[in-house]
Amino acid sequence: MKEGKEKGDKKLIDAIVQDYETDEVLMLAHMDEEALRLSKETGIAHYWSRSRKKLWRKGEISGNEQLIQAIFIDCDEDAVLLKVKQIGGACHMGYRSCFYRKITGEIVGEKVFEPEEAYGSEGEK
Amino acid sequence: MKEGKEKGDKKLIDAIVQDYETDEVLMLAHMDEEALRLSKETGIAHYWSRSRKKLWRKGEISGNEQLIQAIFIDCDEDAVLLKVKQIGGACHMGYRSCFYRKITGEIVGEKVFEPEEAYGSEGEK
Repeated sequence: MKEGKEKGDKKLIDAIVQDYETDEVLMLAHMDEEALRLSKETGIAHYWSRSRKKLWRKGEISGNEQLIQAIFIDCDEDAVLLKVKQIGGACHMGYRSCFYRKITGEIVGEKVFEPEEAYGSEGEK
Repeated sequence: MKEGKEKGDKKLIDAIVQDYETDEVLMLAHMDEEALRLSKETGIAHYWSRSRKKLWRKGEISGNEQLIQAIFIDCDEDAVLLKVKQIGGACHMGYRSCFYRKITGEIVGEKVFEPEEAYGSEGEK
């Protein structure tokens, strides 16, 4: 795989996450080499958190895991597309998708859980 | 909008592009402030090319424009989702989507044009 964006010494690729049944785009995350390897080996989505600077298994706190059904790679080999079965919601704000707002601010997404109950005070993105 | 990834002094956000009718994910690109402004004002997708370090109107050479039907923004405000009417194909390799391969290498996408005819020798991404 070609090297993607750099963040310090860390090479990251973009990961678009899409519901495998409805085709709704759920979120955008980033992967280092280890996150991609673990995602492929376990079938559960792993990412690199740019804000927390650590490997992150989606749902490790909330239980909102993503079960990978297929992985596609783009022409430039610096982005992947995951088709997943999303448990609960993808967004740490409690919505099914992180793209729950139009750019005008209008909320159009579906809230499916309460962040405080899922994450406690710690939060997870 | 919050600042996204930095590339030198350039603040970029990610832009996921999705077919507004079929929900197929077509490509991932990046936008600076001007690209987002022009996209909103004209209704035609504009991006920042990281490789060519310049503003880029998708389809400016090939004619494969993206007519924006809706723009969504994510929870962290560092990524947008464009729902577009894609003229021709999104991928500079001639496919409808840049994600025309499984990560195993198997080609699953639909080739809809010949890159040489669309771009000549110059190429466009």
